[in-house]
Amino acid sequence: MDQRLSLVTLAVEDVDRAREFYVDGLGWSAVVEEPGEVVMIRVGAHVILSLWARTEFEAEVGSTSWSGVPPVTLAHNVATRDEVDAVLDTARRAGADPVSGGTDRLWGGYTGYFADPDGFRWEIAWNPGSIAEIVIPE
Amino acid sequence: MDQRLSLVTLAVEDVDRAREFYVDGLGWSAVVEEPGEVVMIRVGAHVILSLWARTEFEAEVGSTSWSGVPPVTLAHNVATRDEVDAVLDTARRAGADPVSGGTDRLWGGYTGYFADPDGFRWEIAWNPGSIAEIVIPE
Repeated sequence: MDQRLSLVTLAVEDVDRAREFYVDGLGWSAVVEEPGEVVMIRVGAHVILSLWARTEFEAEVGSTSWSGVPPVTLAHNVATRDEVDAVLDTARRAGADPVSGGTDRLWGGYTGYFADPDGFRWEIAWNPGSIAEIVIPE
Repeated sequence: MDQRLSLVTLAVEDVDRAREFYVDGLGWSAVVEEPGEVVMIRVGAHVILSLWARTEFEAEVGSTSWSGVPPVTLAHNVATRDEVDAVLDTARRAGADPVSGGTDRLWGGYTGYFADPDGFRWEIAWNPGSIAEIVIPE
């Protein structure tokens, strides 16, 4: 099995609300849109983020219920410290709630988090180490 | 905010058990390994899968608890229908449990799922449509 991720699918309560946040709010464009069912957004050369109606997700994958934060975070790395704050501001203006501002981390980076309408956390990260060489496109 | 995903971080109960599955079982190689804390695996040109100790995840992100399946799935798309079954077999041999075998989907594809040691589901998918042109590398 190649070590390769193709899609990340999030189970969302209301696909249209999620679309509003990602497409209208963050200004991202979708490659697939089925109102009320699924929205797919390209988030890498060969990677797609899929926002799928929870009812359909559960019918295929199994039932899911959680409290607190979901057990997964998605990160968006940026090239400079300042960009962390700028992206968190963009998310705040798009309606992200909560947004936890940029914080110096013990490992040397600077990151903050915002929640999408379903509570999925995005970490906006500046990483001064070798990880940046992998995740920041030229 | 660019539409770009850099890392997917999964909160795992036991990092060493997760490492055993992904690295020893699936044969993937890690770019970062801190025993008991975190393992990072490159899963795309600019994308990393991070397996992070749940205690540390919760201290930074917030507490999480769920029942059933986690509200997220990761997909690994392949170029042919047969590869779906082959990859599911590989996962089964690596100890994935449960594994739900390849199934024809209403949208025209053929997919199955396996669970990693923490219950995170990977969907192994053959997609005959336009999504394949994005997610399958040349």
